[in-house]
Amino acid sequence: MSLPLSLNTATVRAQWSLEQVIEGCARHGITGISPWRDKLAECGVRRAAELIRKHGLAVTGLCRGGMFPAADEAGRRAALDDNRRAIDEAAEIGAQCLVLVVGGIPAGSKDIDGARTQVEDGISAMLPDARAARVPLAIEPLHPMYAADRACVNTLGQALDLCDRLGEGIGVAVDAYHVWWDPDLARQIARAGRRILAYHICDWLVPTTDLLLDRGMMGDGVIDLPRLRAMVERAGYKGHQEVEIFSANNWWKRDADEVVRTCIERCRTVC
Amino acid sequence: MSLPLSLNTATVRAQWSLEQVIEGCARHGITGISPWRDKLAECGVRRAAELIRKHGLAVTGLCRGGMFPAADEAGRRAALDDNRRAIDEAAEIGAQCLVLVVGGIPAGSKDIDGARTQVEDGISAMLPDARAARVPLAIEPLHPMYAADRACVNTLGQALDLCDRLGEGIGVAVDAYHVWWDPDLARQIARAGRRILAYHICDWLVPTTDLLLDRGMMGDGVIDLPRLRAMVERAGYKGHQEVEIFSANNWWKRDADEVVRTCIERCRTVC
Repeated sequence: MSLPLSLNTATVRAQWSLEQVIEGCARHGITGISPWRDKLAECGVRRAAELIRKHGLAVTGLCRGGMFPAADEAGRRAALDDNRRAIDEAAEIGAQCLVLVVGGIPAGSKDIDGARTQVEDGISAMLPDARAARVPLAIEPLHPMYAADRACVNTLGQALDLCDRLGEGIGVAVDAYHVWWDPDLARQIARAGRRILAYHICDWLVPTTDLLLDRGMMGDGVIDLPRLRAMVERAGYKGHQEVEIFSANNWWKRDADEVVRTCIERCRTVC
Repeated sequence: MSLPLSLNTATVRAQWSLEQVIEGCARHGITGISPWRDKLAECGVRRAAELIRKHGLAVTGLCRGGMFPAADEAGRRAALDDNRRAIDEAAEIGAQCLVLVVGGIPAGSKDIDGARTQVEDGISAMLPDARAARVPLAIEPLHPMYAADRACVNTLGQALDLCDRLGEGIGVAVDAYHVWWDPDLARQIARAGRRILAYHICDWLVPTTDLLLDRGMMGDGVIDLPRLRAMVERAGYKGHQEVEIFSANNWWKRDADEVVRTCIERCRTVC
């Protein structure tokens, strides 16, 4: 028996507004949703919160906060301000967590260790606000191919080390696409335990033709999703599995209802 | 003061034959060379060995053995046969190591752990031949974005765990492109010590437009190469730094002498 399904708005981002995603989830019997902030802004946070409540959807996460490193102090302060707004939005829509894509190396720098320090400082600065708003922060380790420009937290172990140092109110988002290759994965998922705040799925295609926008539908790639799900369940995770597929040349070009039906069918059969 | 320079034939693979690379290295004062086996086969192993000796070049590695996992026993046996031929070739040209790109997940499989077991079994089977031929094997951990289709050994730590289990006659090739992102890198390079058999350099471009053929010239990306070199030197490495750049749309389209001059200049200034 699979975990319940949540639809990340990125999966149908080319086709549907947030309002359409909410109605689409309700229509297809999907019980969870995870909006990106651009879609949330288009809809309006208050209106989105009402629609989500009306349809009884769980909000499995808000995507995304983070992007802490910057070339100067003003840039870092702007990032913190934006993260505090993200906390407010997450609270208003009742999100189970605010997902953090922590950011990469600032332009002009080659100092990945420095960027990592900026990430830790940034999270540390926003964490009291997140705790006060009762919005758990979920660090999402991103695949190492994004280390330079999107996230310099690149393994689950590294994310958990951060959590260990930061204390209460913070955990991780485990995304199959980002972590499936990690030789230390089983051990780190067990270590994560109840700190797994979200579980994202899609698949790694062979070949992968684009670093960002060529993720696969579950079952079309090489990730052993049932094994990964069993690991997160064994660690104590009881939440939704959230489908997040960036696919410029395939799934974003299809009819959104077909995409959603395929997600549901694949979740039943190969996840 | 930088480590001496070696030219991997891949860096000018679109422009030069092995014979031209050998003569080019001699002409430009480069003291090391690392051929790929396709170029070696074109030239003929014996003739290549003579030319390399004549010009007094160090052979910093032969690229490449590996590719162990296969869907069936016949495939695995064929891989072993090919690896034994690679050992003979490496011995004949006096290569300091045979670089192993270990292979990914066999077609139709989603079992990365199984592929990793096949890799260990394969290396274990060829290692006695390598020892007998006095050809050190260098496991090259590849960037995790190649885990599915090229190499399921994806971190230096994982490669060293393999070395620990396999015993004498085996070490690692540290390639900046594959390992620069690793949060555990400094510790693992120190752990590697004298088991670092080769050190490869190029750069990670932002953005990177192709998973395979968009590597950058040293200095054009985000890798802190002086810091990485200091780490491998501190670990005891005294060999060449080998330039290996796959660049379909830039460096492979330029005049090879210009490429070589640029490598030399960048090695002086940014490595």
